[in-house]
Amino acid sequence: MSTLHIQNTLTRQKEKFEPINPPYVGLYCCGPTVYSDVHLGNTRTFISFDLVYRYLKFLGYKVRYVRNITDAGHLTNEAGEGKNRMEDQAKLEKLEPMEIVQKYTVGFHDVCRIFNISPPTIEPTATGHIVEQIEMAQQLIQNGVAYESNGSVYFDVRAYNEKGYNYGILSGRNIDELIAGYRDLDGQEEKRNAIDFALWKKASPEHIMQWNSPWGKGFPGWHLECSVMSTKYLGKQFDIHAGGMDLKFPHHECEIAQNVGACGEQPVRYWMHTNMLNFNGQKMSKSLGNSILPMQFITGDHPLLDKPYSAMTVRFLFMQSHYSSELDITIKGLQDAEKGLRKLMNAAKYLKELQFDSITVEEKQDKWIRDLCATCKEVMDDDFNAPKLVATLHELATQINIYYNNSKKINNLSDVTYNSLLATYNGFLFDVLGLMEEEQSGDNTALDKAMQLIIDIRKQARDNKDWTTSDKIRDALKEANISIKDGKDGTTYEIN
Amino acid sequence: MSTLHIQNTLTRQKEKFEPINPPYVGLYCCGPTVYSDVHLGNTRTFISFDLVYRYLKFLGYKVRYVRNITDAGHLTNEAGEGKNRMEDQAKLEKLEPMEIVQKYTVGFHDVCRIFNISPPTIEPTATGHIVEQIEMAQQLIQNGVAYESNGSVYFDVRAYNEKGYNYGILSGRNIDELIAGYRDLDGQEEKRNAIDFALWKKASPEHIMQWNSPWGKGFPGWHLECSVMSTKYLGKQFDIHAGGMDLKFPHHECEIAQNVGACGEQPVRYWMHTNMLNFNGQKMSKSLGNSILPMQFITGDHPLLDKPYSAMTVRFLFMQSHYSSELDITIKGLQDAEKGLRKLMNAAKYLKELQFDSITVEEKQDKWIRDLCATCKEVMDDDFNAPKLVATLHELATQINIYYNNSKKINNLSDVTYNSLLATYNGFLFDVLGLMEEEQSGDNTALDKAMQLIIDIRKQARDNKDWTTSDKIRDALKEANISIKDGKDGTTYEIN
Repeated sequence: MSTLHIQNTLTRQKEKFEPINPPYVGLYCCGPTVYSDVHLGNTRTFISFDLVYRYLKFLGYKVRYVRNITDAGHLTNEAGEGKNRMEDQAKLEKLEPMEIVQKYTVGFHDVCRIFNISPPTIEPTATGHIVEQIEMAQQLIQNGVAYESNGSVYFDVRAYNEKGYNYGILSGRNIDELIAGYRDLDGQEEKRNAIDFALWKKASPEHIMQWNSPWGKGFPGWHLECSVMSTKYLGKQFDIHAGGMDLKFPHHECEIAQNVGACGEQPVRYWMHTNMLNFNGQKMSKSLGNSILPMQFITGDHPLLDKPYSAMTVRFLFMQSHYSSELDITIKGLQDAEKGLRKLMNAAKYLKELQFDSITVEEKQDKWIRDLCATCKEVMDDDFNAPKLVATLHELATQINIYYNNSKKINNLSDVTYNSLLATYNGFLFDVLGLMEEEQSGDNTALDKAMQLIIDIRKQARDNKDWTTSDKIRDALKEANISIKDGKDGTTYEIN
Repeated sequence: MSTLHIQNTLTRQKEKFEPINPPYVGLYCCGPTVYSDVHLGNTRTFISFDLVYRYLKFLGYKVRYVRNITDAGHLTNEAGEGKNRMEDQAKLEKLEPMEIVQKYTVGFHDVCRIFNISPPTIEPTATGHIVEQIEMAQQLIQNGVAYESNGSVYFDVRAYNEKGYNYGILSGRNIDELIAGYRDLDGQEEKRNAIDFALWKKASPEHIMQWNSPWGKGFPGWHLECSVMSTKYLGKQFDIHAGGMDLKFPHHECEIAQNVGACGEQPVRYWMHTNMLNFNGQKMSKSLGNSILPMQFITGDHPLLDKPYSAMTVRFLFMQSHYSSELDITIKGLQDAEKGLRKLMNAAKYLKELQFDSITVEEKQDKWIRDLCATCKEVMDDDFNAPKLVATLHELATQINIYYNNSKKINNLSDVTYNSLLATYNGFLFDVLGLMEEEQSGDNTALDKAMQLIIDIRKQARDNKDWTTSDKIRDALKEANISIKDGKDGTTYEIN
C-alpha cells in the first residue's frame, strides 16, 4: 500500500496518491518545442519528472509516461496567435521546418541520453496528430464552446464558463480581469472575446506547415496537441500531468478547458509544476548572458563556468533542491555537487567490495541503518523530496566509508538490515535518482599519466642496469596488451 | 564538376550523376519498421546509404536526406493486405502500439549512434502524415487509377497500365504473369484484380491504430507513406531513392506507380539498392539461428561469435564489400576487419604526429602519393566503391607507417602533396567512411593493468628502501590525480 503524497497544484494541497486504475499510472509531461536547443530550465523539468517516473516504477507501478515533442503549431504570443514558430526559424535558417525539427529533436535526445533522462514510453508529436486535433476542435464546436471565424477556430472562454465550468481553476485567474488586461493583438477582431484562444489557425499562403481541414488550410493551435495526445494515450481522465511552472497559464489552463469542454470531466487528478532556475541569484536569460545550455556544462565552454562539470554533477545538483523550489546555481554549488556525487559513487563501489559477516549484531547500529533505509522511502513518499533523500544517502555513505576504512567488512548488522542497505543504497542512488558512473574522459588522461610514469621507471631501471625491474615491466605490459615503442623523440605507448 | 557515376537500378545502367537542382541533392531511403529490433541486413543498408550521404556532402552537395520511420500501416502479406503489424505486436506484448513504436525507435537510434550512422536531415513518420496519405489516395481516385471498395481504397494496376504507364518498370515484372501467379488471399474479393494493392484499408473495430477518412475509419497502406513523404519533402521529382534489394518489389514498384499515378511523372532519377547479407555462406535468418543483431556483435553474446567485435569493426567489414554485392560475414572476416581497422586508425594517429619538412622532394614518391590520393576520389566516384577506397587507404597507411618508423618525419613530399595526403586520408577515413575512434572499454582494463604494475613497482621499491623510486611514484600519481590506498587486503587505486 503506497503512502506517496503529491503536492497537487490544482487543489493547492498535498494529497495521498491514489491512481485511477492501479497498478497502472498515466503520466503526461509537456515536452520540448524543437525549434532551438533545449534550455537548462526545461532540462530541470525533464530531470524532475524523470525522478517522478523512476520513483513510481520503483514503487512497482506500471507507468505509461507520455512526453510529447512540439514540432508544429507553437504560436508566439501569449494568447496563442501570431505565426507558427517553426516557420519563423525555418525562414531564418533557410531550412524546411522539419529539418529544424529533426536537428533539435536529435539535440534534445542527446541531452536526455547524457543526463540519463529516461525516454518516455510514448513520445508523440504534434504533426503526428493533426487528424485528432481537427476532430477535437470539431467536438468543441459541437459542444458549443468553440466557433469558427474566418477560417480559424477559437475556444469560447465565456461560453465555457457560462456552462458552469471554470476557466481559471488551475491558475486562479479571473476571466473578467484577464479580458480587461488584454492588449489589442493581431487577430483579435476575429474573436468574440480577447481571451479566446486558437484551436485551429488559418494559414496564409506563405505558411509552409499547413494542412487541409473542414475550415480550409491551416495549422493547430499550440494548446490543442497536449489535450489530444494525453486523451489518446492515457484516456479522458488520467493520474498525473507535469510541466514547468511557466506553462501553468495559459497552456495548462487552456488544456483543462479543452478537455473539459470536449469530454465534460476534469482530465487530471494531480497537476505537478517545477519551479524556475537562477544563476548566482539571477533569473537565467539570454539578455543577461547567464543562460547556459546543458551541453556547455560538459564542455565548460561558458564565461560563467570555471571548468567543465559532468552531466551527472548537474543532475546531482538539481536533485539537491526540491522540484517545486527555485534552484540557484552557483559555482560553489557545482563544486560541492561534484564532491558530494563522488562521495556517494565511491561509497557504492565500497559497498560492493565490503564483505558481510554477521557474527555480532549490534542492535543500536542495526536499528540506525534500518531507520536510515526507511527514511529514504519516507522522504520520497513526501512529494518526491530528493534533497532529503540525498542527505540520507550521505549519512549512509559516511557509514559505508567507516566500514571500508576500518576493516573492509560489515560485521555488526543483521542479514535483513545488510540486504536492505544494499537494496536501498543502490536502488535510490542509481534507479531513483538516476545517477550513473560516467565514463572516464575519452582522452585517457589517467592512463597517459600512468604510462608516462611506467616509461620513466623503465628508463631509470635500464639506465641502472636493473634488468629485474625492466623485465617485469616488459612482461606486465605484454600481458596488458600495451606496447611501447622507443623512438628518437622518446618513448610512446599503444594499446593493441 | 562532379564525375560521380551511379548504378541506376531503374535503367540497369551506370550513369553520370546529374542532380536536378545543384548544389542541392534530394536523397530518400526507406527506413525501419519499428515493431522489432532493427536487423543486421537493414543496418547494412543504412550504413551503405550513410556512406552515400557522407560522400555527396564531401563532394560539396547540399543534401536533404529523408529517411522515414514506418510506425503504422505496414501490412503483412506481399500484396499489402492483412492486419497492421504494429497491432499484432501490441497485442502480443500487451502494449499500446505507440509504446512498441517508441521502444524500437529508441533502439534503432541507439544502433545508429553506436554504428556512427548519421541522422537524416528529416526523419518523418507514417503516423505523422495521415492527412497527406488520405489526400494522395483521393488524388489517385480522381486520376482514375484507384477505387474505393467496401471502405478500403485500392490502386488499380490495370487501369494504370492502360493509361500507358508501366507497372513493372523497376522490377521488370509483367502484370499478366503477376496476376496469374497470385494466390487467393484475404480481401481479394474487394479488388478488381489480385495485383491491386491497398492505399487505405478499412479498420475492423478492434484495430487500435485507425483514423477517420472519407471512406470511414481505417489506416494507410504501407506503400503510400513513402510516396507521400518523399514528395512532400523532396518534391515530385528528386534525385536518389535508396533501399534494400528486398524492397524493390513490390514496395518500390508500388511507390513509383503511386507517384506517377498522382503526379504524372517518374519521381526518381537514380534508384539504388543494397544487396543481402550472409553468415558463413548462409542467408541470415531466425530459423537458421544465424541472425545476429547489431548489438550482439558489441556484447559478443551470440553462439556464432568467438568474441565481441566493436561497432566500427562491423562498419569497416561492411565497407570492404560493395553495397550492391552480397556480403558474407565470417569470423575470419571480422578478425581481419579488426586488424585492418586498427592499422588505418593507428596510421591516422601517426600522420598527426609526423613532422613535415619538404627540403627534398622526391618526384617519384611525390607522384605516387598524389596518385593514391586521386584514386580515393576516383573509386568513390565509380558508384561509391568503398572496398577499393579501403584498399587505397591501406596503401597510404603502409607508407605513413614507413615514415613514422623511419624518422617520424615526412621529408620527401611537396607541400601540395603533403596537404593533399592529410586532407585525403582523414577526409576519407573519418568523414566519408564514417569510421571513428572508439572509446576505450569502460572497464579501464589497460589502466587497471598499468596501475597494478605501478603498485607492484612501488611495493618493490619500498621493500628495497628505494625511496627515490617510491617518491617519484607518489609525486607522479598525485599529479595524475590518482590516489593509492594501502589496505589489509592489498593496495587499490582511485581516480579523484
